[in-house]
Amino acid sequence: MSARAPILGHDPAPGPAPTRRRAPRGEGEDAPVSSSTAQHPDAVRIALLGCGTVGSQVVRLLREHADDLAARAGARLELVGIAVRDTDAERDPWVPRELLTADAAALVARADIVVELIGGIDPVRPLVLAALESGATVVTGNKALLAAHGPELHGAAERSGADLYYEAAVAGAVPVVYGLRESLAGDNVDAVLGIVNGTTNFILDEMATRGLSFDDALALAQELGYAEADPTADVDGHDAAAKAAILASLAFHTRVSIDDVPVTGIRQVTAADMAEAREAGYVIKLLAVARRITDNGTRGISVRVHPALLPATHPLAAVRGAFNAVVVEAEAAGRLMFYGQGAGGAPTASAVLGDLVAAASHKVHGGNAPRESTYAELPLVTDAQTPARTQVQLRLADEPGTLAAVAGVYGEHGVSIESVRQTGADDGDARITIVSHLATEAALAQTVAKLSDDPRVHEVVSVMRVEGN
Amino acid sequence: MSARAPILGHDPAPGPAPTRRRAPRGEGEDAPVSSSTAQHPDAVRIALLGCGTVGSQVVRLLREHADDLAARAGARLELVGIAVRDTDAERDPWVPRELLTADAAALVARADIVVELIGGIDPVRPLVLAALESGATVVTGNKALLAAHGPELHGAAERSGADLYYEAAVAGAVPVVYGLRESLAGDNVDAVLGIVNGTTNFILDEMATRGLSFDDALALAQELGYAEADPTADVDGHDAAAKAAILASLAFHTRVSIDDVPVTGIRQVTAADMAEAREAGYVIKLLAVARRITDNGTRGISVRVHPALLPATHPLAAVRGAFNAVVVEAEAAGRLMFYGQGAGGAPTASAVLGDLVAAASHKVHGGNAPRESTYAELPLVTDAQTPARTQVQLRLADEPGTLAAVAGVYGEHGVSIESVRQTGADDGDARITIVSHLATEAALAQTVAKLSDDPRVHEVVSVMRVEGN
Repeated sequence: MSARAPILGHDPAPGPAPTRRRAPRGEGEDAPVSSSTAQHPDAVRIALLGCGTVGSQVVRLLREHADDLAARAGARLELVGIAVRDTDAERDPWVPRELLTADAAALVARADIVVELIGGIDPVRPLVLAALESGATVVTGNKALLAAHGPELHGAAERSGADLYYEAAVAGAVPVVYGLRESLAGDNVDAVLGIVNGTTNFILDEMATRGLSFDDALALAQELGYAEADPTADVDGHDAAAKAAILASLAFHTRVSIDDVPVTGIRQVTAADMAEAREAGYVIKLLAVARRITDNGTRGISVRVHPALLPATHPLAAVRGAFNAVVVEAEAAGRLMFYGQGAGGAPTASAVLGDLVAAASHKVHGGNAPRESTYAELPLVTDAQTPARTQVQLRLADEPGTLAAVAGVYGEHGVSIESVRQTGADDGDARITIVSHLATEAALAQTVAKLSDDPRVHEVVSVMRVEGN
Repeated sequence: MSARAPILGHDPAPGPAPTRRRAPRGEGEDAPVSSSTAQHPDAVRIALLGCGTVGSQVVRLLREHADDLAARAGARLELVGIAVRDTDAERDPWVPRELLTADAAALVARADIVVELIGGIDPVRPLVLAALESGATVVTGNKALLAAHGPELHGAAERSGADLYYEAAVAGAVPVVYGLRESLAGDNVDAVLGIVNGTTNFILDEMATRGLSFDDALALAQELGYAEADPTADVDGHDAAAKAAILASLAFHTRVSIDDVPVTGIRQVTAADMAEAREAGYVIKLLAVARRITDNGTRGISVRVHPALLPATHPLAAVRGAFNAVVVEAEAAGRLMFYGQGAGGAPTASAVLGDLVAAASHKVHGGNAPRESTYAELPLVTDAQTPARTQVQLRLADEPGTLAAVAGVYGEHGVSIESVRQTGADDGDARITIVSHLATEAALAQTVAKLSDDPRVHEVVSVMRVEGN
């Protein structure tokens, strides 16, 4: 491989120049020792921020596969430092202690590429901004930072000519960021449906297949290391919401922040819901859903996270355990699915290293990663206007005319019914399950409100979305 | 977005310069009329070779989504001509007749990007070579050309600094070329297992789910347009073999030609095989299999195409109808799967347009696509050394000691047996099905040869590989 000027080098377009140009060949005092005689720069300097489960695997793979990575990137990937909070803490044996430093800012200042695997927003945000402002490429797995401060980061990258990579931020090893940003760059995405949180998928899968309660399944997930001691971010859907925002931004070329994403977690899902879903030919999954809305003259996008019923024949229904999968429905491509391990040290490190090879290759050969693309600026459609289907479970007085009255309430609100099934009886009440056809969220909510007020409806047991025809 | 110099612009590495630099802004007499006032070049000139099912969809999408594509690529994608054999033939209504030309060579000479969708080797090869030699980017869906002449094409691209894209050549809209070339660039691939031919998957699926014979399923596929009048390339596995060669090259950074790929098609698969497979918890799929072999001191790769038994729980087992899917097993990422429509005009056009946006973006902003990477140069392991598992069906004399004798033959050749089941009886003979553990192909073949010679073995009914653990 050889470095070369852009094909259009004879006619360079005016544009903002990088504020600082990096010298991987190693000018200045922090330069790594250079030993190669290749034509292009010998090494690209990499700073690692954070050395937890993923960071440690990145260190291992950088060392074990140094020759392969160099052959693919066109230069050696030289780890010049690892910023950690506690330089004395115990580390995996392959982590070189001499590279550990508590001074992340100084480390960032001497890197061509900064790999950020600390996570969270503070104190990471100023470090990442400093890196981007200096023209260094940033490779991050930090979904929270991207979903909350994406525009600021992309803006800093744009101004300095730096690149920002984040395949590891969504669904671990599953290459859905590449898929949306590059493979589907020539298509128009209609919808993204994803199982993007392995913890909740594990819990729901245990509930579905072994009949566990939510609490027992959560306890098992914690025991096996799939869930943290404080499982809030996972089970309440916040982790999935950050990923939904990132996926929607990529899919629709529009800025979407985590604050734009209504979230419902899985705490309310019961083993009985699971059993009834199975009987009706469905499974319950926590889904990140992003759709382009074009109905009724509305033009925009809807992004949300909630448990949903999926037909058992849907490709996402077969996603078991802690795996992740994302289905993309695009105008020309039709339905695509990306499937794999959504978390864990080595799988997430694989995503980081894929980005690192691309980033290093651009440092050596020129060119940039695809930039953030937000030209479409589609408005976010409020939930009320979103077309949806729901399954409603009711406990009814078991007397003549009740079902007709319920059906009448649906009709009044313009919501048509796909199916009604009696699914049990409690204390003389009938329990029925009603699946609607598509209607607006507003009409569906009004239907449920009206049903709650009806004296013959003794309880609205549950309301759940139905997705994925 | 803005054009910029490579980050390393201050220290350009010496290397071969492009032999010809293209000017998308439109110098020279063939320049498209320019209307934009953006900073970067207004348009990138695209030549389309071939206007069949896929080409026509490319034309449609280029026109319908012109503004979206321009926003994403940074310049308009200007279709400057469409080379076809017969300029008078009927075309889809959106194909502009004034762009049709029979002079492909002249068209290639005035394009920044050549999209080749004619297919086959002659007369396409000199056209594609001419384009690459002149420095034009080539986007192709031509698996036959790549699998037979890949090194020549990549070499021409390397010399002139041109780019070669071919997402559409493997599995239609399924972005497995991106996946292997970019997402997995930092990982080491252990195996690729793919359902990469929709025609044969449709036929096998009809046989499995509806009990059709091969001939009836093929006739149905032809009736529905999934199979051609001459189905040889599909049912005998040649199409899959070309794709296997391309996938193996990408996965293992090693040149693999179609001539390196042993092929068995699906003509010998019977409805009875299907029924028995289902009973044993398997499905039969035509698989493209590429593996890194590290057993027994052998270091190399094995690439082949054949029908195989897959456990019903394997992700590829659920791939129905004419869909394609590719499972990649990588050291750090673990198991990934890419799934989608493997053929058809619009899905394949989606893959072409994804490549086109990337190609145009590089023309505007500089930089190159990742180059062919063949540094690993792993040797191809002959079939005899390949570890494999097989299922053998035998018709045996139904008398005491026969089964022990058969088991003894396996033992003699060092092949251990996973399971033996009696699966029927014919005319006083017993029919048994034996699944082996992993052994070398050579040992398995010798076992079968020895069994064939045994007078108590009345027939070796079938021998089939077992894949996917």
